[in-house]
Amino acid sequence: MVPPHTALMKLDGIFPPITTPFDHDGNLYKAKVRHNVEKWNLTALAGYVVCGSTGESVLLTGEEKLQLWGWVAEYAAPEKLLIAGTGMESVRETVSLTNQAAEAGYKAALVRTPHYYKNLVSNAAAQMLFFRAVADQARIPVLIYNVPQATGVDISAEAVIQLSEHPNIVGLKESSGNIEKLMRMTREAKPGFQVLSGSAPTLWPSLMVGAAGAVLALANAAPYSTIAIWEAFRTREYGAAEDWQNRISRAAVLVTAKYGVPGLKYAMDLNGYYGGPPRLPLTVPSPEAKREIEEAFKDLKG
Amino acid sequence: MVPPHTALMKLDGIFPPITTPFDHDGNLYKAKVRHNVEKWNLTALAGYVVCGSTGESVLLTGEEKLQLWGWVAEYAAPEKLLIAGTGMESVRETVSLTNQAAEAGYKAALVRTPHYYKNLVSNAAAQMLFFRAVADQARIPVLIYNVPQATGVDISAEAVIQLSEHPNIVGLKESSGNIEKLMRMTREAKPGFQVLSGSAPTLWPSLMVGAAGAVLALANAAPYSTIAIWEAFRTREYGAAEDWQNRISRAAVLVTAKYGVPGLKYAMDLNGYYGGPPRLPLTVPSPEAKREIEEAFKDLKG
Amino acid sequence: MVPPHTALMKLDGIFPPITTPFDHDGNLYKAKVRHNVEKWNLTALAGYVVCGSTGESVLLTGEEKLQLWGWVAEYAAPEKLLIAGTGMESVRETVSLTNQAAEAGYKAALVRTPHYYKNLVSNAAAQMLFFRAVADQARIPVLIYNVPQATGVDISAEAVIQLSEHPNIVGLKESSGNIEKLMRMTREAKPGFQVLSGSAPTLWPSLMVGAAGAVLALANAAPYSTIAIWEAFRTREYGAAEDWQNRISRAAVLVTAKYGVPGLKYAMDLNGYYGGPPRLPLTVPSPEAKREIEEAFKDLKG
Amino acid sequence: MVPPHTALMKLDGIFPPITTPFDHDGNLYKAKVRHNVEKWNLTALAGYVVCGSTGESVLLTGEEKLQLWGWVAEYAAPEKLLIAGTGMESVRETVSLTNQAAEAGYKAALVRTPHYYKNLVSNAAAQMLFFRAVADQARIPVLIYNVPQATGVDISAEAVIQLSEHPNIVGLKESSGNIEKLMRMTREAKPGFQVLSGSAPTLWPSLMVGAAGAVLALANAAPYSTIAIWEAFRTREYGAAEDWQNRISRAAVLVTAKYGVPGLKYAMDLNGYYGGPPRLPLTVPSPEAKREIEEAFKDLKG
Repeated sequence: MVPPHTALMKLDGIFPPITTPFDHDGNLYKAKVRHNVEKWNLTALAGYVVCGSTGESVLLTGEEKLQLWGWVAEYAAPEKLLIAGTGMESVRETVSLTNQAAEAGYKAALVRTPHYYKNLVSNAAAQMLFFRAVADQARIPVLIYNVPQATGVDISAEAVIQLSEHPNIVGLKESSGNIEKLMRMTREAKPGFQVLSGSAPTLWPSLMVGAAGAVLALANAAPYSTIAIWEAFRTREYGAAEDWQNRISRAAVLVTAKYGVPGLKYAMDLNGYYGGPPRLPLTVPSPEAKREIEEAFKDLKG
Repeated sequence: MVPPHTALMKLDGIFPPITTPFDHDGNLYKAKVRHNVEKWNLTALAGYVVCGSTGESVLLTGEEKLQLWGWVAEYAAPEKLLIAGTGMESVRETVSLTNQAAEAGYKAALVRTPHYYKNLVSNAAAQMLFFRAVADQARIPVLIYNVPQATGVDISAEAVIQLSEHPNIVGLKESSGNIEKLMRMTREAKPGFQVLSGSAPTLWPSLMVGAAGAVLALANAAPYSTIAIWEAFRTREYGAAEDWQNRISRAAVLVTAKYGVPGLKYAMDLNGYYGGPPRLPLTVPSPEAKREIEEAFKDLKG
Repeated sequence: MVPPHTALMKLDGIFPPITTPFDHDGNLYKAKVRHNVEKWNLTALAGYVVCGSTGESVLLTGEEKLQLWGWVAEYAAPEKLLIAGTGMESVRETVSLTNQAAEAGYKAALVRTPHYYKNLVSNAAAQMLFFRAVADQARIPVLIYNVPQATGVDISAEAVIQLSEHPNIVGLKESSGNIEKLMRMTREAKPGFQVLSGSAPTLWPSLMVGAAGAVLALANAAPYSTIAIWEAFRTREYGAAEDWQNRISRAAVLVTAKYGVPGLKYAMDLNGYYGGPPRLPLTVPSPEAKREIEEAFKDLKG
Repeated sequence: MVPPHTALMKLDGIFPPITTPFDHDGNLYKAKVRHNVEKWNLTALAGYVVCGSTGESVLLTGEEKLQLWGWVAEYAAPEKLLIAGTGMESVRETVSLTNQAAEAGYKAALVRTPHYYKNLVSNAAAQMLFFRAVADQARIPVLIYNVPQATGVDISAEAVIQLSEHPNIVGLKESSGNIEKLMRMTREAKPGFQVLSGSAPTLWPSLMVGAAGAVLALANAAPYSTIAIWEAFRTREYGAAEDWQNRISRAAVLVTAKYGVPGLKYAMDLNGYYGGPPRLPLTVPSPEAKREIEEAFKDLKG
């Protein structure tokens, strides 16, 4: 079931894990999906991750995910690579969602580590069983998604290196910001395995040590600044890269570790995208948080 | 929307969080649900928790939960209190599931703490907002479910004590085994708020310090031994209670912390219930684990 | 080198891990050591632990420890059992201090788990090597001291059970408040091995499940209330025990987890003992903390 | 008491935190201190850190530390900068040791965060109080030492940035390998504040993002390879730097996270330095560990 063109898919560049627009009744807001995607289409973003952590995927039903995948596929410019967040706790449901995303035109699936039964699934053997079982049945390539700050589980470099041998596991998104681990994976995984950074505050050093690209929440609200780092890296203008890195770091922390998706949505509202309200139990940022976000983004255009 | 009889619901006694039977294709196995429930009906178990962590709820779809709730409601003896595990990350989906459980005849909902966006939802303010929002809209009483070994989030005694003031939040299941916290909650929560232990290895001391009852994975496979502790406690036969406690502790650890749901299902198979296979990524115990479970259960009848 | 009378030493009852009095230049304050010990001599406390965590042992030099051991040995009533806190990271220094304490008349040594090189010393093999090496060379019996809230290391029940076979390891102080672990150790360790609780908020349930006694910071400031629980337990007046337990729990948390040694010293000052200032980086409690302590201790006499 | 030349001290380059040679009775081994130091004198190492974590400082007495400081000062080449590890839990003892090191000719003191009373000393206020109190009384400049893998305490970037304003706190050694934090400190601390990496597997990216130099256990056994990265960085030969980084990473992990000081001492023995035995509870590596170390070091000369 492995697609013949796996080896050709390039994951380099910057991908936003796009936020999910809700209206004020908390329903999906199709017009704003279109607004955001069409605005991002004008940038050099490499593609879109739809229904990741930043997309509030754990607050969505399966039907809502299908709707979002369809809408984004409709509005995305043809050159944008589409990646679907499809990870669930069970192999069965992850495969089902992945193959539904494939039918909707998605080219790869981002699958987070299972984490609920921590005593049973946080060891390398269980993780490898899970990802192999998913990848065997998935009709599109699989990217491992490691995000210990949410899951409380950290897949080891060793397990990832072994999983890189699977023909349908083509890469990994590492959101921990652990540079040592990222270096080890880029050094020891199968050639062609692509490691994506999920941490904007370490984007530049991640690229320097071998990351193929990055999936960055910040890129929803401030795509140009993250692309600037990517371009400076590619053209070996390291001074410019470091300078841009220093300019985005504070803003990046505010819209992830500190204020999360609600903070990011507020930054999007500031920059001409639709952020809007999150779903409960997430809540809009406090007035103080909003001021802090305004301050951090005042030199970062959309 | 708070039901008039909340104050009358007694949660004392022993409840199994029932396992979910799957056939060898991984589908729900209705005949075995019936077999197990009818066998438990013959015991003094106080009721059933359906779709808790032990029920592999995170590996089930919403539709499957509805089916299970329906089947158990159909087969349960009328005196058994029915509790539905309905917690999801969003308020919206938790309320929806809770009210579907209410329609299926369930008398209370067990709602675990949200935990995915740990930086945003593991503080007391966010936890209180979540549980109040759910309880405001739920048509049956709500029990808070604290299980840090799975969620990586531990709701504080202070937050629970404040939440106990809500008229539709009637109790809590505490699975951490933290006796100090359990004592504090029973001492300081609103009178009538019922604290249930979720930890069989500390059942007897939990009852001694004020737990109203317990929700115990072990009670799926060995209900009589857990009921024996409950009865010895109620009749003040403390020597017998301690003796039974010592007899069950090893077995209890094997079917929770050590081998989890797959280990419990194997113990059920040994004791005349249907355990069967778990869903992937959970897997059947190794031969060594099976032998360890056989040894621990050889004096614990079903 | 194992003393012939090991088997006879009874560690039952309540022991304060005594605080170390400093004058306002930060030097040891001999007159106040005498004042406190002579006042405690009038109670039914079973003995004294000198240079434990509560004694700010990690803030003392080796010479100061020797001085304290000498002074307390001089002032203690003859029926009080003397225990010295002698744990250091190295076997060599722990043995040296232990045997100096033996010469000063101490009957047992309380030795905490090594913890600095966590990657090397927090496994069972290293812990067993450490305690066996110390116990082999110690001229007085050894008590294992487990205090994960300070060390970040938690010795397992399995390791303790194996160590209980050593003829010169006679017991353990468990400060985590983990009742399940305490039950397992009392159930499976060698008969005669004595488990002491180090957690006042769980004193009564700890005694119910088999603790021989307790080493309690709170007993410095409020010895009578902790002894009351002990006596009620021994005479099977469980209602009284639970009642006293509920009365002390808030105060116990304030002088340990919440405000630590500085809070305890302030409570001692309130109750006719000398508390005085701690050593930097510990600092005297804030005015708000002091008021909270005053409130909690107003019904707990010295 | 702040020395007038603080601003001039440059901490750039590579420093080994030197191991402490013991003979087979476990006593300090002066001849081997001389052997090692004279061999390191022939390299471009920037100086020596004496009595750090790698020096088994927590297994040494105060007297032994003084001896070591004296011997190393005697044997070190004059251009080598001498730094003493002087951190203790108390301000009093830390100041005392620091000023003894100053008398012995040491130019700076490396002071780790206090960590035993975690509930009281792991907040920013207590950490700032501790370091300011030490720095106020120290006769040589102070370097903050953050090593959460040993202490269980992680001083925040914010606290470090504030402490960088103190005229006698001139830098920090960060051993966590957290590149995001390192970048933030180099970006926001007072100009001139020097951040040293304590993590060899991230040496090159640490230098790229602003570290002034590094204190690396690996430099005891393989100084040339760590110096090669430093020199490649300074001459902007980034390909060479990355290449060397990839060559050392496996070895670096073996002699720190995986096998610790005993593993490092074995690697020193392989490379013509004296490693020798560690002090108990540390033990010599197993035969398998030794083979793994031999393999990793076979291309890394001393």
